[in-house]
Amino acid sequence: MSHDILILTETELRKAVHLDTQVVETVEQAFAALGTGKVIMPPILSMAIAEANGEVDVKTAYIPGFEGFAIKVSPGFFDNPKIGLPSLNGLMILFSAKTGLVQAVLLDNGYLTDVRTAAAGAVAAKHLAPQKVETAGVMGTGVQARLQIEAAHLVRPFERVLVWGRNPEKAQACANDIAVKLGIEASAESDPARLVAESQLVVTTTPAEEPIFKAEWLHPGLHVTAMGSDQEGKNEIEPRALVDADLYVADRVSQCEKLGELRSAVHAGVWTGAKPTELGEIVQGKQGRVDADQVTLCDLTGTGAQDTAIATFALSTAREAGAGSITKS
Amino acid sequence: MSHDILILTETELRKAVHLDTQVVETVEQAFAALGTGKVIMPPILSMAIAEANGEVDVKTAYIPGFEGFAIKVSPGFFDNPKIGLPSLNGLMILFSAKTGLVQAVLLDNGYLTDVRTAAAGAVAAKHLAPQKVETAGVMGTGVQARLQIEAAHLVRPFERVLVWGRNPEKAQACANDIAVKLGIEASAESDPARLVAESQLVVTTTPAEEPIFKAEWLHPGLHVTAMGSDQEGKNEIEPRALVDADLYVADRVSQCEKLGELRSAVHAGVWTGAKPTELGEIVQGKQGRVDADQVTLCDLTGTGAQDTAIATFALSTAREAGAGSITKS
Repeated sequence: MSHDILILTETELRKAVHLDTQVVETVEQAFAALGTGKVIMPPILSMAIAEANGEVDVKTAYIPGFEGFAIKVSPGFFDNPKIGLPSLNGLMILFSAKTGLVQAVLLDNGYLTDVRTAAAGAVAAKHLAPQKVETAGVMGTGVQARLQIEAAHLVRPFERVLVWGRNPEKAQACANDIAVKLGIEASAESDPARLVAESQLVVTTTPAEEPIFKAEWLHPGLHVTAMGSDQEGKNEIEPRALVDADLYVADRVSQCEKLGELRSAVHAGVWTGAKPTELGEIVQGKQGRVDADQVTLCDLTGTGAQDTAIATFALSTAREAGAGSITKS
Repeated sequence: MSHDILILTETELRKAVHLDTQVVETVEQAFAALGTGKVIMPPILSMAIAEANGEVDVKTAYIPGFEGFAIKVSPGFFDNPKIGLPSLNGLMILFSAKTGLVQAVLLDNGYLTDVRTAAAGAVAAKHLAPQKVETAGVMGTGVQARLQIEAAHLVRPFERVLVWGRNPEKAQACANDIAVKLGIEASAESDPARLVAESQLVVTTTPAEEPIFKAEWLHPGLHVTAMGSDQEGKNEIEPRALVDADLYVADRVSQCEKLGELRSAVHAGVWTGAKPTELGEIVQGKQGRVDADQVTLCDLTGTGAQDTAIATFALSTAREAGAGSITKS
């Protein structure tokens, strides 16, 4: 039986969805739902294609009350830049949660993933960073370095940004972009220890496989969001930092213990504590930061619930704008 | 960076892909590749949405030498018929195996799955059924009952078909459809024991959760393909039949022990043998049936390799025909 499917291109999705407070609220709702324990979110399907230096991940989640659920396919082919293509691509498909029929195909080439990933950083900062953040630091110089700072600024309007990267020129370029985008002071900082010392909020956004953030850098009144690790081999944060912090929070424990900073800490024998708190539980009201001096650390691996939330939001705004083309199938 | 994506609808795909010997050969190639052990095929991602009586499965596989890999999403929402919609739907997405870019979106609503599932039955019959099949029996009266017989007829041109189903009217309708489609004798048979006794090839195509095929019905010169079980709760074949047969063959052992007839046989404590042979190994030349009197049984759960093969074939034939619409994304 024929039904309508809305096809949306990256260009149309970039017009329909921006990294703003509405998107942060949408992703916050996804975490709130995760916090109720009623979201159905199966383990990530992952396939590596070694001979092409590529991998593909598939995520999904059903959030009760949402009309649809997304299936998100994220290929990462890391030799692409050699031929002028981005490493990360992919699409989302939105299905009716009542009939399973395809509602929309979102050919976003990874754009919606970029946005929902940054928005999760804002949710973490909103609920865990100290109320007053004057300086934010970011480690890494890629797309997420820029977007994480932009997102965090929506919930903590800091006045200064420090950027560290292995490549000083890229760090400077990233700082310049941030300064222009947010109209605030932003500069490259060659010493990561100094970056952390001067910041109340630090976001790590690298694909590091050895820690780039030392536990000894933790200081009172610091919040750290680590969002780079989303694969087994990755590790940005020195494991001891997870227990030295007053509060460690996972976006999803079952994912973080396989793919996040928690994996490295468990593997190193450092994490021996109880089941960590999840970000969704904090959004739901579980105690997070108790005073301005605490040290908090949030581990983000990226959840299918965020994908379902952003895809639902994108379809809704695109429909309102009359964007996209309808295919009968 | 913008690139071309071909969007194909069910109507276009039904014109481009038919259940014929070319499709059977395509799916046979997928099994041959599986038999080499070089295919990368991760476990199925599966999510149940109990409150909608729905589920969704995601399958994929990378076959070396194929330009692309498919991600197949199959929702099954079993209350759909109450509102006039089919239970099974879904789509396939074909990605470049070199760059991960989306090449094509195949909005087939499950059509390609129907075809590649029936084609796997033909591959099983080609390699395992006795050379001479005069009568074929089918248990079940749905889409796959018709397609499995149509596919098997391509490799064993039998002259007579018997159809058994719980509902005699549906069995008669199915027999009528088969008679018209293949131009041969086809009739409903109310006694499943007699159906099996008179057949050299039997295909079971039901969603049964308790065996509908008794081990005592096995007889010399019989081949059985069981393709109904693809979920944990399903079971068509009495477990003892798997060991009573001279040869039990799985499409993929790792799937059959979770989702197929093998699961029930292991669970019942009946299967205690070595690792079963896989269909791909037989296609690659491993010994299958040794004489006309043996009893063989093939357990099909459906593999991502079949999806990658049929999607690649569909894209190729659709391109040749100039079908579909191109979207820039």
